[in-house]
Amino acid sequence: METSVLAGLDHDRASRTGVPEVVFAAGKTLEQNVAALSGLFERAGFALATRVPTEQRAALGTALPGAVFDPGSGAVRLGALPRTGVPIAVVCAGTSDLPVADEAAFTLEALGHDAVRVTDVGVAGIHRLYAALAAIRACRVVLVVAGMEGALPSVVAGLVRAPVIGVPTSVGYGAALEGVTALLAMMTACAPGIGVVNIDNGFGAAALAHKIVSPA
Amino acid sequence: METSVLAGLDHDRASRTGVPEVVFAAGKTLEQNVAALSGLFERAGFALATRVPTEQRAALGTALPGAVFDPGSGAVRLGALPRTGVPIAVVCAGTSDLPVADEAAFTLEALGHDAVRVTDVGVAGIHRLYAALAAIRACRVVLVVAGMEGALPSVVAGLVRAPVIGVPTSVGYGAALEGVTALLAMMTACAPGIGVVNIDNGFGAAALAHKIVSPA
Amino acid sequence: METSVLAGLDHDRASRTGVPEVVFAAGKTLEQNVAALSGLFERAGFALATRVPTEQRAALGTALPGAVFDPGSGAVRLGALPRTGVPIAVVCAGTSDLPVADEAAFTLEALGHDAVRVTDVGVAGIHRLYAALAAIRACRVVLVVAGMEGALPSVVAGLVRAPVIGVPTSVGYGAALEGVTALLAMMTACAPGIGVVNIDNGFGAAALAHKIVSPA
Amino acid sequence: METSVLAGLDHDRASRTGVPEVVFAAGKTLEQNVAALSGLFERAGFALATRVPTEQRAALGTALPGAVFDPGSGAVRLGALPRTGVPIAVVCAGTSDLPVADEAAFTLEALGHDAVRVTDVGVAGIHRLYAALAAIRACRVVLVVAGMEGALPSVVAGLVRAPVIGVPTSVGYGAALEGVTALLAMMTACAPGIGVVNIDNGFGAAALAHKIVSPA
Amino acid sequence: METSVLAGLDHDRASRTGVPEVVFAAGKTLEQNVAALSGLFERAGFALATRVPTEQRAALGTALPGAVFDPGSGAVRLGALPRTGVPIAVVCAGTSDLPVADEAAFTLEALGHDAVRVTDVGVAGIHRLYAALAAIRACRVVLVVAGMEGALPSVVAGLVRAPVIGVPTSVGYGAALEGVTALLAMMTACAPGIGVVNIDNGFGAAALAHKIVSPA
Amino acid sequence: METSVLAGLDHDRASRTGVPEVVFAAGKTLEQNVAALSGLFERAGFALATRVPTEQRAALGTALPGAVFDPGSGAVRLGALPRTGVPIAVVCAGTSDLPVADEAAFTLEALGHDAVRVTDVGVAGIHRLYAALAAIRACRVVLVVAGMEGALPSVVAGLVRAPVIGVPTSVGYGAALEGVTALLAMMTACAPGIGVVNIDNGFGAAALAHKIVSPA
Amino acid sequence: METSVLAGLDHDRASRTGVPEVVFAAGKTLEQNVAALSGLFERAGFALATRVPTEQRAALGTALPGAVFDPGSGAVRLGALPRTGVPIAVVCAGTSDLPVADEAAFTLEALGHDAVRVTDVGVAGIHRLYAALAAIRACRVVLVVAGMEGALPSVVAGLVRAPVIGVPTSVGYGAALEGVTALLAMMTACAPGIGVVNIDNGFGAAALAHKIVSPA
Amino acid sequence: METSVLAGLDHDRASRTGVPEVVFAAGKTLEQNVAALSGLFERAGFALATRVPTEQRAALGTALPGAVFDPGSGAVRLGALPRTGVPIAVVCAGTSDLPVADEAAFTLEALGHDAVRVTDVGVAGIHRLYAALAAIRACRVVLVVAGMEGALPSVVAGLVRAPVIGVPTSVGYGAALEGVTALLAMMTACAPGIGVVNIDNGFGAAALAHKIVSPA
Repeated sequence: METSVLAGLDHDRASRTGVPEVVFAAGKTLEQNVAALSGLFERAGFALATRVPTEQRAALGTALPGAVFDPGSGAVRLGALPRTGVPIAVVCAGTSDLPVADEAAFTLEALGHDAVRVTDVGVAGIHRLYAALAAIRACRVVLVVAGMEGALPSVVAGLVRAPVIGVPTSVGYGAALEGVTALLAMMTACAPGIGVVNIDNGFGAAALAHKIVSPA
Repeated sequence: METSVLAGLDHDRASRTGVPEVVFAAGKTLEQNVAALSGLFERAGFALATRVPTEQRAALGTALPGAVFDPGSGAVRLGALPRTGVPIAVVCAGTSDLPVADEAAFTLEALGHDAVRVTDVGVAGIHRLYAALAAIRACRVVLVVAGMEGALPSVVAGLVRAPVIGVPTSVGYGAALEGVTALLAMMTACAPGIGVVNIDNGFGAAALAHKIVSPA
Repeated sequence: METSVLAGLDHDRASRTGVPEVVFAAGKTLEQNVAALSGLFERAGFALATRVPTEQRAALGTALPGAVFDPGSGAVRLGALPRTGVPIAVVCAGTSDLPVADEAAFTLEALGHDAVRVTDVGVAGIHRLYAALAAIRACRVVLVVAGMEGALPSVVAGLVRAPVIGVPTSVGYGAALEGVTALLAMMTACAPGIGVVNIDNGFGAAALAHKIVSPA
Repeated sequence: METSVLAGLDHDRASRTGVPEVVFAAGKTLEQNVAALSGLFERAGFALATRVPTEQRAALGTALPGAVFDPGSGAVRLGALPRTGVPIAVVCAGTSDLPVADEAAFTLEALGHDAVRVTDVGVAGIHRLYAALAAIRACRVVLVVAGMEGALPSVVAGLVRAPVIGVPTSVGYGAALEGVTALLAMMTACAPGIGVVNIDNGFGAAALAHKIVSPA
Repeated sequence: METSVLAGLDHDRASRTGVPEVVFAAGKTLEQNVAALSGLFERAGFALATRVPTEQRAALGTALPGAVFDPGSGAVRLGALPRTGVPIAVVCAGTSDLPVADEAAFTLEALGHDAVRVTDVGVAGIHRLYAALAAIRACRVVLVVAGMEGALPSVVAGLVRAPVIGVPTSVGYGAALEGVTALLAMMTACAPGIGVVNIDNGFGAAALAHKIVSPA
Repeated sequence: METSVLAGLDHDRASRTGVPEVVFAAGKTLEQNVAALSGLFERAGFALATRVPTEQRAALGTALPGAVFDPGSGAVRLGALPRTGVPIAVVCAGTSDLPVADEAAFTLEALGHDAVRVTDVGVAGIHRLYAALAAIRACRVVLVVAGMEGALPSVVAGLVRAPVIGVPTSVGYGAALEGVTALLAMMTACAPGIGVVNIDNGFGAAALAHKIVSPA
Repeated sequence: METSVLAGLDHDRASRTGVPEVVFAAGKTLEQNVAALSGLFERAGFALATRVPTEQRAALGTALPGAVFDPGSGAVRLGALPRTGVPIAVVCAGTSDLPVADEAAFTLEALGHDAVRVTDVGVAGIHRLYAALAAIRACRVVLVVAGMEGALPSVVAGLVRAPVIGVPTSVGYGAALEGVTALLAMMTACAPGIGVVNIDNGFGAAALAHKIVSPA
Repeated sequence: METSVLAGLDHDRASRTGVPEVVFAAGKTLEQNVAALSGLFERAGFALATRVPTEQRAALGTALPGAVFDPGSGAVRLGALPRTGVPIAVVCAGTSDLPVADEAAFTLEALGHDAVRVTDVGVAGIHRLYAALAAIRACRVVLVVAGMEGALPSVVAGLVRAPVIGVPTSVGYGAALEGVTALLAMMTACAPGIGVVNIDNGFGAAALAHKIVSPA
């Protein structure tokens, strides 16, 4: 006879870790996602989900009035945390990397920070990065989103004092190995001071930046 | 006819990135290491090298009076940066991981911070981590050093508000794949807010922590 | 001229190994699955199939009256082995791992044992595991189902006396490498006493538990 | 200023998990190994270490009178747990796999069980396995140690009712990939009821068998 | 201006290598496959294609009257080579491996040999192999088709005098790595005298057997 | 509040690197591809895109009158660079490799060079290569496109004085590992003087050839 | 209490499989190798060992008068099987591959066959292969030994009627991945009729050739 | 009876391919290396060997008067080809990469070209590259030598018109995977016009540059 042991919910995750629980919507049904988001929102006045499947977005918007969508990444939020005004850069190598950068920027904004977007500064035209350097240097943390050879975090970390978070993406083909090459490259960057998160994990990079800039 | 183009040295790396240039001593000769350290020290009043080969340590100590060694990791420093008093945790899963944790702690101290060491709190006896939790929670950044299955950063990141830096180590055998398993595991940790550095890279983790706690 | 040599069927597998032959239904036609299940049931009064494709379930239910389905995993059974009353825990890290845990629990119940379900106790909120620890410790074998970094078996094996069976799942993305990371991590767990089965193999874990608790 | 937080030792691991703490001696100094073993022995009247480096064995024997060595695997014990008389098979594919099988058998004996050794029954001469089948079938758990293609656990698990623990070894060259091939092969065995441990991990297999046969 | 250099067709491949040119139909259009088959047939009175896509079979049968199909593998032939009467075994581990075994057997028959089919003799029920051993031993070459852990060629090669050709298949999931595990396992088989071909390459195994039994 | 920093476009890439910016059309919408191509064409009188999805080709042809398509590879161009008359060979191992060879040849022609096509000269019929050798030797650069075992560049590089560019393709199955095997094989070719580009990267090979033959 | 079950020796392997038992001497002590060789020789009048460590050769020669050594590969034999006069080619790509080719040729000669050596015919100078083609075509089986990109078997199999056995070697560096690249390349050869053995396994290739040419 | 077929030497490789035969001295004996070098020198007035083992250099210098050594890489030459005066850049990321850059530069000089050395311009201090850009732009081909994340070729290829040859090195640890990460990164560089050679293959890069600048 199958029995279930109640493990207890993780209600206090936000107070314990500083990062609220977030719904990873891919692979879940519309009903599951609506229930999770409304449950979180009722409890805490804030809810965030990433990677809502395209076909669920209209229905989810109907079911959750007030939901704010990020069309690029498929993230959605109900409410937002108080604004901190802390500028955090989201530097992006190529246009194909934009959905991951969008997820990071949307998460940062939902958590109350100011996302400073710098786009299309891949290392094959490195002068474009220089043009944006002053704006990047004014930020407290710098997220660098890049696929293919994943070289941009090395270059950026050699130019700024802020901590750099590398976000490898699955952009590329063949030897890009669906992002594994970019991940390995960021891991072995010759510039120190880079922390790397999982492939395509824009949310995770934003959560790490949030922990860095939040008072304990 | 072979010609050399002078590329110019990278004198201002510390001011540009906040992290001074550091010598990776493994694979270099004694003469190269002595020259690099004394050159850096003369210019900036501070020099740090990691992974000095065991057989070079005595001679290097003779050549560089005032050098301070870390016996566990083979790091050495001349001078130190001004003390900041910022506490940074270095949490270590097992005794075999200690050389990597030592490199991180020694680097943190050389850069002016207070390394709070928590040792032998592997996930197979998780109550030991709880005993040290208050001390860890008092830190501004938490470095977590672990080999084998690399599970400790996930557990720690679920318990603290500070950012967590995962340092996979090459400890283990067989399926540990010389640290690759721990690296992949930390990358896919279910707790958000973890930045991962290269295998056995205690220095890199300390440099990232330094950037996190230093004013821009 | 092609000839076929009759190899003889494996009629006595159950008596020889203690585990009855089970149909892996994915990739087979409806006709093949119906024939296999009814053949096994006629011979032994018991038949089990795992991973019945979603589109076959209605027709298979019509063709095999009395079939009992597990909606989560797509397993189905005709009849069941005599109940033993032996409690076996099925501990599951996250909700995305549930289909694999469901397959394990359904198989255990079909083989006569009591599946004790403990769900959503991932290592990022480890206190939830403690809340369920007494129930887990009352079990004779503990199955631990986890994807991503696959850390949960290490933690559980450090807390219980019963043997632990690790079931890595393909849950996760990027560096999760479709379950390979969780598999490698469980292999290198720092806690001894864990046997690991293939990725997503809930049935195999249940079969091993069955052999552990059955008298020879 | 570096500070250390006392995490507390893991004194009650044996009572909590049923498996006493064991020293992995490779990579430790003679002094560390002597101290660890005598400390464990004083506390609990029993101590076990695996993989003592060859060059330490004589000195360790002098330092620890009463130490019993296993020449094949380099394991050593002080004292032993009470005898249970439970027969556990250690089946070994080839002579090159013997050190791993020796470690498993020595650990089983130290933990109080009767190791039933069956050696040199690789699948290239499968009739030898049949000759030993009655003895294997009389055991409560069957450890199967094999390198190269790692096929033996599949064959054995198709012949016995007891649970099978697969121990891949690093024996072989080229495509054997230092044991990874055997590990993967055991993971995908067509016979259910096999739990796999890390490459060359004879101790871990014995610890799992011990948990299987010990009352909770 | 793009120009094409005529490289000349490979008309004499059959006489040079003993194996006629064969069409790999997957990924080609119906028109390409019809043209290739009729061209080969006109020139040599014999044509063979493997892996004809399911949706092309009816139209291809209409376009090429006299075409003989193998429903299991999607191979098709026009004409056949003279019969040699040489018996060649096609031993198959599981029913999921049948399409690959079918491709091998159909190719052998098309090349004039007698395919002796032995099916469902996986190593988890090794007695079934013994029941067919006399028939296998009467063959001049033995093809062994197996996925998952790929153990069957080792067992067979330890029992027969004929050369063994191992054909790994992509059957399995998780750690089976789409056939790579079976390939590596066959490569490291402990029984000598096995030549391995590519994953799922039933045709290649038959071609090698054909070269073995054909007079130079 | 999200802000965007204008990084500046990379207008002078062609003058800086000698290769104009090219659109990688796969994964982009029709609107994005039309806009990118017309933008490039207006600025420079020339535009090239590779891998236009099949379903966009008709609409893209309507939207961009004067567009010239390559049906094999899905490349498209508006205008062309001035003709140089430099002959560059595009040697192709098998018919399945043709789309990649087509992309290379079309790019070469668009950039003004004469593509000399040599097709179906795989190493299994090496005499066909000899028949085309004079034409190949008359070229300034030799591109060699091959999948599966990727052996052709080694053979060609041993026969010609011109530099050889190896283009591995994803043609093959099983151990071909989607082109990784061909890539690794070309990397380790025993003939010196081969530069290798990414899997299926016909455009990249043509761009490298263009840089080789263009005056600085 | 540890007990040993006598599995029985594999006395009849030669009669059962056609290949006598052979000693893999690497990793065994001098005493073990002497005992194994003299035991086999007494029983069957023939004994063969491969890869005798360099430092054991003199002592082994003293202990076993009449032993015949192969200096290139470290193989040794006592006695030889009756001569068959069957010519078998051992084609070798480069001089670094010679030890593996030597092991194959020495084994073939020990088993009674005529090894026809063709050396230094790597694909970078393919005309050298043509010079030896008549001699190769006169052989009943063709072994092709090659490291690095492993291309030679494809070329040879496109030129001869005899079956080809590919022997990848660990010769090369970097992307050669210690022979894995050559192994994968031979697996995906575009010429059918190649059976591949493990990396550096000259003995295994010879054993397979022996089975091919021996009457059942 | 073993027989040898004379394959004929590859005397005309230089005239056929434009690159003379070169000795890879690692793993060869002193006698073999002396014989090979003097043989080549007698025939053609020029001989080159790479990677002469350190312990052979003195004796080799004695045996071959007039030999010119490169201490950094262990290359040696007798004579040199006529000087062409063509400038070829050898750009090197870090000091640990110098032996590979030295091998490339020494080979270029031996083949008659002017090696323009640019050293220590890793992407973490990218301004150093700009300081040398005019000199690099004056070259006909640009070799870029880099380990770790292998990012430098992307940056350089975005700045110059000349073709770029990427040389990944095995410099780095952990996720650098002995050069595989740098190799994959260079393969997926976002800047077109890069040809990649094997890990640490300075000679191969120089040979490719030589073919690029030599008249056919």
